Amino acid sequence: MKKHCTLMIHGGAGELDKLHGPAGAVRYLRSIRRILERGQSILKRGGPALDVVETCVSMLEDDPLFNAGRGSVLNERGMVSMDAAIMDGRDLGAGAVADINRIANPVKLARLVLAGNKQVMLAGTGALRFARSAGVRLVSGDYRITEERRDEYKKLRALSQRKAETFSADQHGTVGAVARDSKGNLAAATSTGGMAGKKEGRIGDSPIIGAGVYADNRTCAVSATGHGEKFMRTVLAKHIADLIAFRNLDAETAATYGISYLKRTVNGRGGVIVIDRKGRCAARFNTRTMVHGWLDRDGNIHCAY
Amino acid sequence: MKKHCTLMIHGGAGELDKLHGPAGAVRYLRSIRRILERGQSILKRGGPALDVVETCVSMLEDDPLFNAGRGSVLNERGMVSMDAAIMDGRDLGAGAVADINRIANPVKLARLVLAGNKQVMLAGTGALRFARSAGVRLVSGDYRITEERRDEYKKLRALSQRKAETFSADQHGTVGAVARDSKGNLAAATSTGGMAGKKEGRIGDSPIIGAGVYADNRTCAVSATGHGEKFMRTVLAKHIADLIAFRNLDAETAATYGISYLKRTVNGRGGVIVIDRKGRCAARFNTRTMVHGWLDRDGNIHCAY
Repeated sequence: MKKHCTLMIHGGAGELDKLHGPAGAVRYLRSIRRILERGQSILKRGGPALDVVETCVSMLEDDPLFNAGRGSVLNERGMVSMDAAIMDGRDLGAGAVADINRIANPVKLARLVLAGNKQVMLAGTGALRFARSAGVRLVSGDYRITEERRDEYKKLRALSQRKAETFSADQHGTVGAVARDSKGNLAAATSTGGMAGKKEGRIGDSPIIGAGVYADNRTCAVSATGHGEKFMRTVLAKHIADLIAFRNLDAETAATYGISYLKRTVNGRGGVIVIDRKGRCAARFNTRTMVHGWLDRDGNIHCAY
Repeated sequence: MKKHCTLMIHGGAGELDKLHGPAGAVRYLRSIRRILERGQSILKRGGPALDVVETCVSMLEDDPLFNAGRGSVLNERGMVSMDAAIMDGRDLGAGAVADINRIANPVKLARLVLAGNKQVMLAGTGALRFARSAGVRLVSGDYRITEERRDEYKKLRALSQRKAETFSADQHGTVGAVARDSKGNLAAATSTGGMAGKKEGRIGDSPIIGAGVYADNRTCAVSATGHGEKFMRTVLAKHIADLIAFRNLDAETAATYGISYLKRTVNGRGGVIVIDRKGRCAARFNTRTMVHGWLDRDGNIHCAY
């Protein structure tokens, strides 16, 4: 039987067990469960999928365990630069912010971009100007830099370039959520601090509609995590949606094919969570782990990595 | 019989005739022809599709008639902010730059990002830092602001918001090229100054892989122009490639379906140029005009709008 659910979230694909051991993994799963419970409460009172993914992703951003919002990794210059996007499956409405700093919850800013219904994507200082004009409080540049990230940054700087790349590749901590509400509407959101030690100004797949995020009521909602450039080159979230649109696949088969396509065409590593229009859902990844969890249609919460 | 060609370029979809009259249109077509001739000379000596699209787009950027590179429109703050991307159909290699200034040829910088084979997209000051480290000469902020654009900006500022939006919507001048070389390799590139009067930091579809540009030897090469946000929400270039991949359509049918999908789902306006893996090509648009031209497989040059 295919798995059905109303909400699925992830906290990044990578090598969680290697980095933190089983004990560390438990902390991640505890956070995932707590956030799913919050999403469940919104769904229970009939809240829209768009609110659910925004809330869940902003909670993931607030938890310094994950590489998004608070807890974002540092780029080559020791600075935070975050990307996020949100998409509404009802009308393909989309909002994204890229290469931003000083914002506590990038996904909330992306939601404001979506709500403005003019731009889809705002970056850098222009995005901050928009935030200020929308009344969003700017936090200090240090707000989301945790001690762990500073230590990691120092460690990363000391490594050879080759080792640094392996290190960065091992720990994708991008977060995301996909939901299907009681009206059958779909939504997706993704948020990230990017790759540790990334080049200044580098934008990954998370804020790119069709790469790291996608939602269309006619097909599915997708959120991706992994080596962003590979997801951008394959436009993977849209690829999965088109497999459903043009080949009539379900979420599980489309997600499996999608990850196989990612590996085959660009040797990409990462994972996706998908809910299709009928509420069938799937989590697929070719990294060792992907922290994730879901709320099944009977109201039970499941967590895995 | 389906149209076959080796190179197709465009200089934007919009209301060219309304803005410039038939006499103005002739200037555009003359430029298109000259640039196709240059592309032809590269193809004749066996040059790769990637070089052809880079060269053609950089020439379109250099011509102040078009809204890209020199001749870019000004944003809400009276500044230039350009986006560009290039993609290699052989291996899905891609490079993009967004929200940049002080670069004479954004498409060439995008090609350097592609060649670096690490990031896909660099934005803002980070992209400039990359340019400097790659030895790209920065031009003065004023280099690409023409008198026409300054006048237009002043005019735009004087209009009501509603009229300003109509004005901006009428004159998409994004440029792009798609090519198929003697080895059957495909490539695509797109470059733009964006929408006149756009918000600071706004990134459109041109630098988004899958939205305003896409190339895959297994399917097709696409470059788009029009109301960027609509192309981003529909991920239109990838949508067209997937119509070819999953439904086995030719370029003409896929382009027609693509523009119809754009209109139907998000009421989008604009156009695309497409060459498929067999060299069949198509230009489709639902604006009044789209300046474009192509080099057919017999070596004849055609221009149209």
